[in-house]
Amino acid sequence: MDFEQIIGILAGILTTIAVIPQIYKAIKSKNVDDISPYMFVTLCLGVGLWTYYGFLKNDLPIIITNGVSFIFNSCMLIIALTAKSEKN
Amino acid sequence: MDFEQIIGILAGILTTIAVIPQIYKAIKSKNVDDISPYMFVTLCLGVGLWTYYGFLKNDLPIIITNGVSFIFNSCMLIIALTAKSEKN
Repeated sequence: MDFEQIIGILAGILTTIAVIPQIYKAIKSKNVDDISPYMFVTLCLGVGLWTYYGFLKNDLPIIITNGVSFIFNSCMLIIALTAKSEKN
Repeated sequence: MDFEQIIGILAGILTTIAVIPQIYKAIKSKNVDDISPYMFVTLCLGVGLWTYYGFLKNDLPIIITNGVSFIFNSCMLIIALTAKSEKN
């Protein structure tokens, strides 16, 4: 594995796991008032399209990192929408 | 421009602009209690490494989309940390 690949993999892991602390915080506090659901709608659409792009290009790293991102960001979106509707 | 390129560009635009509604909401409400700064620290590190990866690969689309993402996510991180420290 060369240096460029290592940087790419590290970058992919970081952008994929970034939402985990936010999911943890939202589940723990059950407060999502300050969170914009539009951010996570847009992220889901974006990483969903990246996953589709990965399938078009037959590029497994793009499919895996963005597929996992899609799952994580969808979880966060569902938590945000559920917690908001429970308050209303 | 072929279909794959259009999907890639759309995906890049969506993941890059996703944080804008969150920045807008945070500036408007001045409340960031429910936001995890760790999410934005990790995102900044991740898209920062993607930008570096773009320079290593000499790939302008990767540099531009992730460079812009880095600026947006840094703004959100600064807003989150500033608003938290003002409350303490």
